[in-house]
Amino acid sequence: MSTGELDLAQARAVLAAQPFAQHVGTELTEFGAGTATLRIVLRPELKQQFGFAHGGVLAYAADNAITFAAGTVLGANVLTGGFSITYLRPASGVGIRAVARVQGATRSQAVVNCELHAEHDDGDAVLCATAQGTVRVVERRL
Amino acid sequence: MSTGELDLAQARAVLAAQPFAQHVGTELTEFGAGTATLRIVLRPELKQQFGFAHGGVLAYAADNAITFAAGTVLGANVLTGGFSITYLRPASGVGIRAVARVQGATRSQAVVNCELHAEHDDGDAVLCATAQGTVRVVERRL
Amino acid sequence: MSTGELDLAQARAVLAAQPFAQHVGTELTEFGAGTATLRIVLRPELKQQFGFAHGGVLAYAADNAITFAAGTVLGANVLTGGFSITYLRPASGVGIRAVARVQGATRSQAVVNCELHAEHDDGDAVLCATAQGTVRVVERRL
Amino acid sequence: MSTGELDLAQARAVLAAQPFAQHVGTELTEFGAGTATLRIVLRPELKQQFGFAHGGVLAYAADNAITFAAGTVLGANVLTGGFSITYLRPASGVGIRAVARVQGATRSQAVVNCELHAEHDDGDAVLCATAQGTVRVVERRL
Repeated sequence: MSTGELDLAQARAVLAAQPFAQHVGTELTEFGAGTATLRIVLRPELKQQFGFAHGGVLAYAADNAITFAAGTVLGANVLTGGFSITYLRPASGVGIRAVARVQGATRSQAVVNCELHAEHDDGDAVLCATAQGTVRVVERRL
Repeated sequence: MSTGELDLAQARAVLAAQPFAQHVGTELTEFGAGTATLRIVLRPELKQQFGFAHGGVLAYAADNAITFAAGTVLGANVLTGGFSITYLRPASGVGIRAVARVQGATRSQAVVNCELHAEHDDGDAVLCATAQGTVRVVERRL
Repeated sequence: MSTGELDLAQARAVLAAQPFAQHVGTELTEFGAGTATLRIVLRPELKQQFGFAHGGVLAYAADNAITFAAGTVLGANVLTGGFSITYLRPASGVGIRAVARVQGATRSQAVVNCELHAEHDDGDAVLCATAQGTVRVVERRL
Repeated sequence: MSTGELDLAQARAVLAAQPFAQHVGTELTEFGAGTATLRIVLRPELKQQFGFAHGGVLAYAADNAITFAAGTVLGANVLTGGFSITYLRPASGVGIRAVARVQGATRSQAVVNCELHAEHDDGDAVLCATAQGTVRVVERRL
């Protein structure tokens, strides 16, 4: 993997190696060509006091999806510089889907947009939050 | 509690009622006068693949601390509109401390700044990320 | 105009009533269905010391385009709560084009994505920055 | 100036070399030790249609102040990666003051907080917006 490029199976192995992604219960369902999609089953332990997904779960999902989407373009050696998230609606239903897409990239960085949808058991998906983040290539030093 | 004002014990009860805050292991250590501090013991399940705190844990902590800090000024009926976070350094050590302070507020909203520190077992704290968020009063409707 | 809805001519009149938009030299070229596009001729007074568009011009354009795009969905009585902007490349060429699109909206707020392109005299457009903002309906009180 | 360090007079010369800063009418009043303050007289051409400072003026001022504050710590060869701004109140009065402070820095980047105050002719200053930005050192290549 000298080029730093990843396929879906390798990217899933990276996610599986992140204990917090496992603690939340995150699955990578799409990875490639500037896009990454994460899915999280909305178990009771991911909620806040009113029964909706905790805002922190959406923020975590945005962070993780943004980094993976950038990885499809910049390779495996990347670092997320930060992101901003806007909450639009409370997220209820059976799952959270974070769909991140690279909006633009140079050789050294990418800006990534992420939509966070609440999935309902009738198949409906409702946009609950959007995020925008920056990811940079980490230079390897000898 | 007709005024919507909270003291530390009541705010801790709110945090205890958030299943995700418990799933992460969050403790409210300071609450009042425009400030809220959260502490999270950096257990293995909160890390990423290189042994540092997962960026999503810092983002979650920022979200939660920002909302509580705003609650000290705006009362209990608030909603976080969004926030932005910038990562400065990887967070290692024994714990994460999120210190949020209201930077300005009107009757209907507050802007809140949050510093995320990594705590080391020698007592040192290192700034790892900063965040800025907006919290609004939710109007009660009959 | 009791509904608060605007067409392109009316939206242009709003822009023409903003002295700073005129001071910069901003033109509204598209307005409707969740989208607004602004164009700014890159005159010498809009540059920084290296001959590129000043970052503040891009930030101004994002602010203004985001508000107009939200206005196509939420009506004329809106207020921009804030936005975040990421700079990807220096902007050179003959003009700046800010294309804002509503990514999601409720009855009371919209999240808007904005792409800032540098236009070159050969017709090329290069993505130089992206922004994401929040716009809320201002309630009229008697 | 081999170290890239600037004093107030040199920083003012940098600002004076930015045509857009002059077009807006920006003055650098403080520069050093992690802080930079800009002042802008609120002339009619900087306003929006209701007589307040245009949001884009505040956004421009945040961008410029953040970069200068980072320059006090990182030296002259820096690039602003982006920022987020939250509007708290409309800005009226006689001037805008943007006070930026480095909140944390490594050798390669700084996170900077910025408060935007409206100055009134009775000497009062009212917080109208806050911003947070990231500035990176630009590596010189031979």
